[in-house]
Amino acid sequence: MGDVWGNRIKLSLFGESHGPAIGVVIDGLPPGLAIDLEAMEAEMGRRAPGKSATATARREADRVEIVSGFFEGRTTGTALCGLVYNKDTRSRDYSQIKRYARPGHADFTGNERYRGFQDYRGGGHFSGRLTAPVVFAGAVCKQFLSSKGIQIYGHAKQIGGIVDTPVDPVTPPQAGQWGIAQMREIPVLDENAGEKMRQAILAAKAQGDSVGGVVEIVVTGLPAGLGNPFFDSVESAVAHLAFSIPAVKGIEFGSGFDMAAMKGSEANDPMYVEDGQIHTRTNRNGGLLGGITSGMPLIFSVAIKPTPSISVVQETVDLERREDAKLVVEGRHDPCIVPRAVPVLEAVAAIALADYMV
Amino acid sequence: MGDVWGNRIKLSLFGESHGPAIGVVIDGLPPGLAIDLEAMEAEMGRRAPGKSATATARREADRVEIVSGFFEGRTTGTALCGLVYNKDTRSRDYSQIKRYARPGHADFTGNERYRGFQDYRGGGHFSGRLTAPVVFAGAVCKQFLSSKGIQIYGHAKQIGGIVDTPVDPVTPPQAGQWGIAQMREIPVLDENAGEKMRQAILAAKAQGDSVGGVVEIVVTGLPAGLGNPFFDSVESAVAHLAFSIPAVKGIEFGSGFDMAAMKGSEANDPMYVEDGQIHTRTNRNGGLLGGITSGMPLIFSVAIKPTPSISVVQETVDLERREDAKLVVEGRHDPCIVPRAVPVLEAVAAIALADYMV
Amino acid sequence: MGDVWGNRIKLSLFGESHGPAIGVVIDGLPPGLAIDLEAMEAEMGRRAPGKSATATARREADRVEIVSGFFEGRTTGTALCGLVYNKDTRSRDYSQIKRYARPGHADFTGNERYRGFQDYRGGGHFSGRLTAPVVFAGAVCKQFLSSKGIQIYGHAKQIGGIVDTPVDPVTPPQAGQWGIAQMREIPVLDENAGEKMRQAILAAKAQGDSVGGVVEIVVTGLPAGLGNPFFDSVESAVAHLAFSIPAVKGIEFGSGFDMAAMKGSEANDPMYVEDGQIHTRTNRNGGLLGGITSGMPLIFSVAIKPTPSISVVQETVDLERREDAKLVVEGRHDPCIVPRAVPVLEAVAAIALADYMV
Amino acid sequence: MGDVWGNRIKLSLFGESHGPAIGVVIDGLPPGLAIDLEAMEAEMGRRAPGKSATATARREADRVEIVSGFFEGRTTGTALCGLVYNKDTRSRDYSQIKRYARPGHADFTGNERYRGFQDYRGGGHFSGRLTAPVVFAGAVCKQFLSSKGIQIYGHAKQIGGIVDTPVDPVTPPQAGQWGIAQMREIPVLDENAGEKMRQAILAAKAQGDSVGGVVEIVVTGLPAGLGNPFFDSVESAVAHLAFSIPAVKGIEFGSGFDMAAMKGSEANDPMYVEDGQIHTRTNRNGGLLGGITSGMPLIFSVAIKPTPSISVVQETVDLERREDAKLVVEGRHDPCIVPRAVPVLEAVAAIALADYMV
Repeated sequence: MGDVWGNRIKLSLFGESHGPAIGVVIDGLPPGLAIDLEAMEAEMGRRAPGKSATATARREADRVEIVSGFFEGRTTGTALCGLVYNKDTRSRDYSQIKRYARPGHADFTGNERYRGFQDYRGGGHFSGRLTAPVVFAGAVCKQFLSSKGIQIYGHAKQIGGIVDTPVDPVTPPQAGQWGIAQMREIPVLDENAGEKMRQAILAAKAQGDSVGGVVEIVVTGLPAGLGNPFFDSVESAVAHLAFSIPAVKGIEFGSGFDMAAMKGSEANDPMYVEDGQIHTRTNRNGGLLGGITSGMPLIFSVAIKPTPSISVVQETVDLERREDAKLVVEGRHDPCIVPRAVPVLEAVAAIALADYMV
Repeated sequence: MGDVWGNRIKLSLFGESHGPAIGVVIDGLPPGLAIDLEAMEAEMGRRAPGKSATATARREADRVEIVSGFFEGRTTGTALCGLVYNKDTRSRDYSQIKRYARPGHADFTGNERYRGFQDYRGGGHFSGRLTAPVVFAGAVCKQFLSSKGIQIYGHAKQIGGIVDTPVDPVTPPQAGQWGIAQMREIPVLDENAGEKMRQAILAAKAQGDSVGGVVEIVVTGLPAGLGNPFFDSVESAVAHLAFSIPAVKGIEFGSGFDMAAMKGSEANDPMYVEDGQIHTRTNRNGGLLGGITSGMPLIFSVAIKPTPSISVVQETVDLERREDAKLVVEGRHDPCIVPRAVPVLEAVAAIALADYMV
Repeated sequence: MGDVWGNRIKLSLFGESHGPAIGVVIDGLPPGLAIDLEAMEAEMGRRAPGKSATATARREADRVEIVSGFFEGRTTGTALCGLVYNKDTRSRDYSQIKRYARPGHADFTGNERYRGFQDYRGGGHFSGRLTAPVVFAGAVCKQFLSSKGIQIYGHAKQIGGIVDTPVDPVTPPQAGQWGIAQMREIPVLDENAGEKMRQAILAAKAQGDSVGGVVEIVVTGLPAGLGNPFFDSVESAVAHLAFSIPAVKGIEFGSGFDMAAMKGSEANDPMYVEDGQIHTRTNRNGGLLGGITSGMPLIFSVAIKPTPSISVVQETVDLERREDAKLVVEGRHDPCIVPRAVPVLEAVAAIALADYMV
Repeated sequence: MGDVWGNRIKLSLFGESHGPAIGVVIDGLPPGLAIDLEAMEAEMGRRAPGKSATATARREADRVEIVSGFFEGRTTGTALCGLVYNKDTRSRDYSQIKRYARPGHADFTGNERYRGFQDYRGGGHFSGRLTAPVVFAGAVCKQFLSSKGIQIYGHAKQIGGIVDTPVDPVTPPQAGQWGIAQMREIPVLDENAGEKMRQAILAAKAQGDSVGGVVEIVVTGLPAGLGNPFFDSVESAVAHLAFSIPAVKGIEFGSGFDMAAMKGSEANDPMYVEDGQIHTRTNRNGGLLGGITSGMPLIFSVAIKPTPSISVVQETVDLERREDAKLVVEGRHDPCIVPRAVPVLEAVAAIALADYMV
């Protein structure tokens, strides 16, 4: 259970970090959608590891092979399956990972859930590597949304306590600015903030430690009236998918937790009409009211915990003997996954919203 | 779309604020579950309006009639339907609410979504009143969970900027303390904090304004190994349901957004074995790793925005004429819904977790 | 589990034969659909018992109260709940039914499934009475389909071995003929066949026995291109719902089982173009190819077993003592439920097809 | 839509006849299930083409590569993906198939549904080849069921009007007899009937024609109490999946359509107790009452239409020009798919029943 998602668009995710392949089946796409494979590969590249000192050294081309549902450059309308073959899976001794649960990881909980039958190599099905097919699905959905005038952008809002330039929720940055942010090693709007974040990541890395952060996603061009009250609210769909992503610990829409300390007169977004369209002067509600889009930019932020794989000595347990143990996690790890989480959370937004647009 | 939820337990929610009745159908409950109707009614009473000066003056007994799936004091195993008849629905002129969208409410977005056919009286299907059947479903699920040793508690963690005593995530308060908190007008652990919150609410009310807050939910007695990675993570299920509740703007598990500023060495919960059981010394992950319960207390916090219905002049729009307008929302409203949201979010936790336990 | 159905339109069925009420929640209807309550009540009347000597003497007005999702004569777009209160539930001794399983009924299997906690009075949730809310849901869906030019008709194709006039699958009878059939005690196209069926039913009744039959459903006005290959084929949806109806033992589309003995050259429907539209000269495939409508009339037949409640002595078992026993089923029963099953199976078709049309 | 199925076990089917690969993702399997790969391959072999004169000459090894959810010989409990690469896809001119709809095929309906964007090569997603992953999923489910003492058998009950030995629904043939039937070119219990069927197939083939038939499936070892009333009845689940299979036109459980002509006294299965277990003396209900298993053998029959690909001249239409045309279907085709449909329908039963057993 748990590898299938969706209402109108359905995803089936599969694979393990060190198995033959990982992938996703996307059902419910409209027929005739042209897929720009280069744009899709660019999205994959944004998430791919091995690009810089601030990320893991594991190198994966993350090349997607579309094996179904795609014909003559367009979706057929039947299930589209994208496969990513695992290549750089070093043969090594996994006995330690099987035995000693890594704190902050799913080693213990996965072992309980699957009664010891899970593929524990490299985190198995729990690996962050499984977000590669999510990004693929998101890239397809983004292209669909883009054809309807909807754009999705993200940035590292905060890393290691350093904050990026705040996004104006009424008039967010334009496409060009987001494009520049995406090309940076740390995807930020403010280059200086990015440089400080980079230093913070490298400082933590030097200590064998890691840092967390916050990703902010902005969606523009949405029509008003998408979504439903209660169990199919846009917030429910986005949050459901966001919490599917490893390391996500919180989500807030619009001013989120800050609204909890506001008064009603501060929190309500005043409304007005311009050119026959209804707008709000502020956008503390983040483009959503009653689970439904208001036509204002949809904005949400996601808390990412620091990578749990750190090379300092940690207290852990020996799962076999059920006794206390010490552990130093070895191998190649990201000192900060926030930069790579940005395209993943853009994908989350794209998938959730495409589900309402088909 | 959007009124049905669930995997193993399914909910169908229905009704409008001023229609004949509201209710819920719960499918997938195990047969033979004894339901203590008094305990269920006590839960309903916690959410019911009209109890104090800090809540709306609308009075509803919120009496649930179970019309199916319940026989000789126990669930039958087939669909259980609970109905709540609407009684105190004052006959009055709704033309203003139909025409002038209340800022911060779903009047505009609901009108877009349902093309003007929604029942706009008293918020219709978008009304907070629809959380009454959610509390009913939660009460049933709580009793099921309680029979498995699982308890769910909540408190007003923050209202109007005033914070309640923090909950120790490793050793949360005992049942007795939660019982006392529940009996208070503001459900808090610290009576003094509660009194200050009450003053803050009354001060806002005196100005025709409202305040928001944060609700924290604590679940004890959960076994390790519940939940699934990815699309059926416990966080996904809880967040999905939480964002179904009107006025919810954010959710975080464990240390949540605070983890974004931590280092891995601070965020990872050290593990140890005691009496053959695996525990963690801290519980920053809030009882969840990889979407699966760890056996530690499950803890999450939810941001509630201030009630949007305020009696100060607001800028709004005339939906008919599509032009700017001014609005003073009239009628009986909660100056703060956080106290009443506590049992609703306990219900959310109960429903989400019962779904994994059946 | 099992009381929720659907993809785009979702049904939640609830209730027991002798409980306070039965009903259904319909989620996913489009907003603004006008519902003709008289037409809906006429559909309910076609299924209602107590009308003639060929049906049970139990009298139920089967009056539906719509308690949500309906405002000013139209659907709101949120969940629509229809309730039918149970009235004519004679107080009597149910100890026999609890103890002695009626052959051909779900008494034994229901007892196994629900471990003795089911409401056994009058068949409880397994009662044919639960088809009343199905007819209600069907009536709503029929009105939706009718607004798109789609009509659904049914007749008793066979009862007690007597067959009605065959329906031409290419040029089925017109609305007027179906209207006449519906007004007959036995809904048949050929009055003489109906009279013979009536005699067969009364003859069986005189012996304390019952008869079965076949219902045929014809849908006209469907566009080509509805449905999907594999798990969402129109046949899958219709069959899924049809087998939800008590006493249904088989279903076939178009020539169905007769096609099994044909050659390809006999079974393939030759195609031609007329006025730019594609038609087939024959319609052995019953309007469906590859799970998708062809634009030809959709035709299916459903086998209904004879009512298992008969007043002859039967071999049964004592569920309490787990020993052999004899049983004579008492009470008011239909000697043939085929006439009342016709509107139920029309409802099945309406619900399944509306799901593709919204 | 339409490529995802299931409640507790979910299938995602993907692929096209002439694309790179076809496959299925199975979610919800229990962890730790040992999979006998040879037994699985034997099932694949039963469905595979190219084995005899009565089947298509297309040769496919139909070798499944399991790329996820399988570790050290056992299921992990997370999504299991099985891939079958397409190899023998002759490069040829598909312009005729794109333009001239084959009568009895989904060429026209698929073109309407997918607005011309479907992969039309070799039937694309509508190809019977897609039943290969269904057989794979069924093989996995069969092994799961077998570990619970449940066995699934099938035979060609009728081909070209010739009938196999009837199966006694109370005491069906033993495993050994089914094993012999499976090894025959036509899987029948009666070798003579099989030989006559073979002649009928070859006679039709000689005329460029094809024949249909009926497949009967028998499931033994099921406990009583599986399934649910209404929308999750065992009949609903089995029929839903069976009608997902191309060429299926009807299904009946137990005596099925024959029950429609019975009296209640003939149709009801008399009950008795033996060794504390409840049995029925006859099994006209096919092991199901009220949608729930009775513990008697579950029996159903499925009507398979004759292969629509025949090499006689047929009336068709030119989809491009929307005008009448003549067509002779070329290429390698099965003159009868009934023998290959037997393992497919066994798989259908296995998948539907495993869904209730997990």
